[in-house]
Amino acid sequence: MLDLPRPYLLFLGDIAERGYAKTALGLRDWAPEHCIGEWTLPGGVSIDLPRLSPAEAKAAGARALVIGVATPGGAIPAHWLPVLIEALQAGLDIVAGMHAKLNDMPDLRAAAARLGRQLIDIRTPPPNIPIGDGKKRSGKRLLTVGTDCALGKKYTALALTRAFVARGVRADFRASGQTGIMIAGGGMPMDAVVADFAAGAAEMLSPANDANHWDVIEGQGALHHPAYAGVSLALLHGSQPDVIVLCHDPSRQYVLGYTDYALPDLREAIDLTLRLGARTNPNIRCAGVSMNTSALSEAEALKLCAQTAAQLALPVADPIRGGAAFEALVEACLA
Amino acid sequence: MLDLPRPYLLFLGDIAERGYAKTALGLRDWAPEHCIGEWTLPGGVSIDLPRLSPAEAKAAGARALVIGVATPGGAIPAHWLPVLIEALQAGLDIVAGMHAKLNDMPDLRAAAARLGRQLIDIRTPPPNIPIGDGKKRSGKRLLTVGTDCALGKKYTALALTRAFVARGVRADFRASGQTGIMIAGGGMPMDAVVADFAAGAAEMLSPANDANHWDVIEGQGALHHPAYAGVSLALLHGSQPDVIVLCHDPSRQYVLGYTDYALPDLREAIDLTLRLGARTNPNIRCAGVSMNTSALSEAEALKLCAQTAAQLALPVADPIRGGAAFEALVEACLA
Repeated sequence: MLDLPRPYLLFLGDIAERGYAKTALGLRDWAPEHCIGEWTLPGGVSIDLPRLSPAEAKAAGARALVIGVATPGGAIPAHWLPVLIEALQAGLDIVAGMHAKLNDMPDLRAAAARLGRQLIDIRTPPPNIPIGDGKKRSGKRLLTVGTDCALGKKYTALALTRAFVARGVRADFRASGQTGIMIAGGGMPMDAVVADFAAGAAEMLSPANDANHWDVIEGQGALHHPAYAGVSLALLHGSQPDVIVLCHDPSRQYVLGYTDYALPDLREAIDLTLRLGARTNPNIRCAGVSMNTSALSEAEALKLCAQTAAQLALPVADPIRGGAAFEALVEACLA
Repeated sequence: MLDLPRPYLLFLGDIAERGYAKTALGLRDWAPEHCIGEWTLPGGVSIDLPRLSPAEAKAAGARALVIGVATPGGAIPAHWLPVLIEALQAGLDIVAGMHAKLNDMPDLRAAAARLGRQLIDIRTPPPNIPIGDGKKRSGKRLLTVGTDCALGKKYTALALTRAFVARGVRADFRASGQTGIMIAGGGMPMDAVVADFAAGAAEMLSPANDANHWDVIEGQGALHHPAYAGVSLALLHGSQPDVIVLCHDPSRQYVLGYTDYALPDLREAIDLTLRLGARTNPNIRCAGVSMNTSALSEAEALKLCAQTAAQLALPVADPIRGGAAFEALVEACLA
């Protein structure tokens, strides 16, 4: 699988809104030891890291420039090219996870070839992914699933991995999306794999391991999503999780961008996940719910988590807030 | 979508077993008006069509040579190259649906470019497939689903389309796999689409149509299949069928090639399909079961279909055998 050159210089282009800097913020928050600094064009947003040019970052130990922002449409703007070539000249590789590919930019490709540097497109899956074989693998696995996209499956998996390790449990975060892959330094871009091989790709992502080792796998999409449910099911089958944690955002009523589709009830989402997941792991269970309460006050968040926990008879917590509820969720995962 | 040059000359290579000639047999049985003849290398099997060289086929009106056999491993053997080049020289395009690509064979590619002929790899999806939007489309849709791969989903969809048309109902067969695409002259190779776009590809395959028009869509994989369920779910969501017909082979106990996985119970397979399909079409219903009774005698087949129909309270028929049971299944689809 992918093995990325680190540490990184985070490039933010001239994107003015932090909302587009999800990748850079994720890296800063979850892999700070791998983030040397940030670099922007005039007008670009800062994420409060040391401001370093490509040459300064190289001198400070950086090995790659990471494009840390998404653009509307997923393209790499042509006016970013001079900075990208400057980075190659400074001795940095370039890493990007956008739909547009670095390797499809002829000038950039020529510069990289001339300078002996790598252009790493995170969304290009590795070659030779096998068809899934469905065979039981040793070791323990947890998969974060969701009622929708983009509501905390990656953060939840990262927070649980950190909590497991803090308890002395051997655990690895397994990344299935571009930001997660940059944080972990490797993983599988599930959304870019050809459909027939998607379950096999998920099997590759969490290989056999020691009996007491946990793979904590970042989920993708949602089984109730009208466009991405197939990816979610392939990841569920191939991950064969022992434990799922359902991620939910109570401020969201409809699938993001799909106003014809109400979010599923939490019980329905859990029940459907367990029914489908039991096909490749009959012992699958739900440890609880990760509630994204970023739109609520602390008091509202605590109240909602407690109410939902009582309704479902399961631990419910916001990993970003931590506290006793999150401890209970972690204990339930490991029980 | 794909639009293939027809009629065809069917090329069978030097494959000695009919079991590998599934594509050629499907074309002969379901698109005889598009099959001018067959051509083999020494040792190859015949499927009882007129034997014509590429030049003779061209003179008889053929527009393309189709590779009508699968090879173990999906490769195109190097010793077939002279015949393929002979076909290009005779003025035929070449169509293939194997995992290996015609366009990846440098000598063949050079010959096609020199001669101004097309190399059409069926498993290469069209560019610019959109993300699924989940919006309700006009017209009626039927999807064949299965308890496993390779047990009659394509044949069932073709037989139902033919029966609909014979009743004066406007209907089109919509192909989702390589043999079906060759029969239909177009379609969508679902197994080759990148996972994120699979539901969008299924939406493309059955576009909005007149209110009384039926798209009869060839299913892929199975929701209970440990490797391919994601493809099946994307096709189900994107097809948003009004009606499903479940295809089953009673001689099969395990998923083909997966002896750890028992085939699901018919009720469970229907129930799970309706539960998942209701997400994009709340009015989805099951019209009945298509039973592949090729391993049974006529009397055994009739008895099994009648017994299963009584158990499920649904029509159950083998479309290859036809008869009153199949008429009942067709009526239930259109009810």
